[in-house]
Amino acid sequence: MQSFEVLSREFAQRFNKSHFPAEPASLYQPNDYFLQAGGKRVRPVLCLMGNELFDEIRDDTWEVATAIELFHNFTLIHDDIMDKAPLRRGKPTVHEKFGRNTALLSGDVMLVAAYDYLNKISGKYVFSVIRLFNKTAREVCEGQQLDMDFEKQETVLFDQYLKMIELKTSVLLAASLKLGAILGGAGERNQNLLYDFGKKLGLAFQVQDDYLDAFGDPDKFGKQVGGDIVANKKTFLLIHSLEAASASQKKELKKLLEDNSDAKVNKMIQVFKECKADEWALQLKNKFLDEAFAHLEDIAVLSKRKEPLKELASFLVKRDH
Amino acid sequence: MQSFEVLSREFAQRFNKSHFPAEPASLYQPNDYFLQAGGKRVRPVLCLMGNELFDEIRDDTWEVATAIELFHNFTLIHDDIMDKAPLRRGKPTVHEKFGRNTALLSGDVMLVAAYDYLNKISGKYVFSVIRLFNKTAREVCEGQQLDMDFEKQETVLFDQYLKMIELKTSVLLAASLKLGAILGGAGERNQNLLYDFGKKLGLAFQVQDDYLDAFGDPDKFGKQVGGDIVANKKTFLLIHSLEAASASQKKELKKLLEDNSDAKVNKMIQVFKECKADEWALQLKNKFLDEAFAHLEDIAVLSKRKEPLKELASFLVKRDH
Repeated sequence: MQSFEVLSREFAQRFNKSHFPAEPASLYQPNDYFLQAGGKRVRPVLCLMGNELFDEIRDDTWEVATAIELFHNFTLIHDDIMDKAPLRRGKPTVHEKFGRNTALLSGDVMLVAAYDYLNKISGKYVFSVIRLFNKTAREVCEGQQLDMDFEKQETVLFDQYLKMIELKTSVLLAASLKLGAILGGAGERNQNLLYDFGKKLGLAFQVQDDYLDAFGDPDKFGKQVGGDIVANKKTFLLIHSLEAASASQKKELKKLLEDNSDAKVNKMIQVFKECKADEWALQLKNKFLDEAFAHLEDIAVLSKRKEPLKELASFLVKRDH
Repeated sequence: MQSFEVLSREFAQRFNKSHFPAEPASLYQPNDYFLQAGGKRVRPVLCLMGNELFDEIRDDTWEVATAIELFHNFTLIHDDIMDKAPLRRGKPTVHEKFGRNTALLSGDVMLVAAYDYLNKISGKYVFSVIRLFNKTAREVCEGQQLDMDFEKQETVLFDQYLKMIELKTSVLLAASLKLGAILGGAGERNQNLLYDFGKKLGLAFQVQDDYLDAFGDPDKFGKQVGGDIVANKKTFLLIHSLEAASASQKKELKKLLEDNSDAKVNKMIQVFKECKADEWALQLKNKFLDEAFAHLEDIAVLSKRKEPLKELASFLVKRDH
């Protein structure tokens, strides 16, 4: 059983090469540019760990892990177009640097490259691997569409937001683990427990992410505090506050959503606190994390084999920045 | 051996259902809308014919044909975004009707759906089918990128344009045929001859398309004559004229490219004629068509089996509208 650090390093070594032909450079160079910017490679490592939970890592698992990372980066390139994001990983986004049309097309071809890696595997699990990969790809698109739909909706309920986050963020983490488990020869029950572990872990992660936007230490958080607030994003904090608020607090929240002054962020954080959204979010995060660990606990392999996944989960979710 | 009409009708019957879940409708309804607008379904039928040239149509071939048609429609949705096209098949394009972001995402999920159909096939040819499908998908993206690159380039040479058309248009026709041939159990030589037939047919088709834009009968052509001229598109006609023109004709062409008056189309057609681009284009079309038929002739199956493909090719390329 290898740690996240070890697997991450080995994955990076294998992954850090061009996955594309040299020409036309106008199409492929943007993808090389984007992939070189790095990222934590969490998803492919989850896939490797999902395999290693049950058996030694297969050659095929490296291919699937690569496909997962390419798929994830494809979604980032296209999401950045849709969100008009100027920066990603501290560098100009693909559409900022190369134009929207090229970003669209480079993203498309990155998705095709992911399927090229999936076509390298063989064995009895090919069908179920690709089926799960496709289902997940569809769901991630659904999540992004719901996220865009929500921007136009005045009210988003907690359950709706949860469903969106599940699709947009959680299922890819869950599927990465399960794909590894399938390749590692796990039985169906163990596969599904690992999937549920990943899903809950993803939810906990998103609650934390929303929490840190308002309550994180700006020195450690690495991005501007209150970004979600400025953008009027319907986060766990806002949705809970709107549901828990008194009539006067609700009025204040609505007013703040129309507010574009510099004071907006601090005032909004104040109302979040009054509505106890901070405490509530920490409890919610812990609830999801407890549920995640309960699923992991339930998997029928030696406890020792689960250590790297436990460590990674704690690292991802309990981090204080 | 069945005719294009028969296969096209049977394919349409199977294909005319939703290929997507009901929810979220905001993501999937745009795809249903676009697919319902029809189209000639040439590519999937080429796949079926490629199979039937060698053997009875397999169940798997219907799945691959469906994947091809979904892939083709995915490229159309994304191309329309990039080209800012308002209409397709006489109806508003997806991005016009549902917005650019949704069109981007709906296109993405249509590509995933194509891979879902590919995952339904089984048998020894799975690997080579998906490998050719992926290669073709990559090439079509390359062709679209080159097309966009050419818009910014002052000069495009004949060979460059040919390469772009080959990638953007021909390889998908060629691959559709070859995928069918693979599934029909054809040997490698026959597969490749059929591929080359499709590639040359695609080139002949594009020459004709460029020709009709300037010299087609407006009543039969179905779209505005001179659309390429208005858009300053570097077509076979313009590229040839620029290469064949005298110094004064070249000057006139450059002037017309800057011209935005109503007289532009007729004046440009006049110069094309002076440069004999019309005659040259018809000869070029016939050359590609002859080459296509020579490849078809060379395929080692009974001549009678080739009849439907010959008819289809003549229908596609010799049509006078």
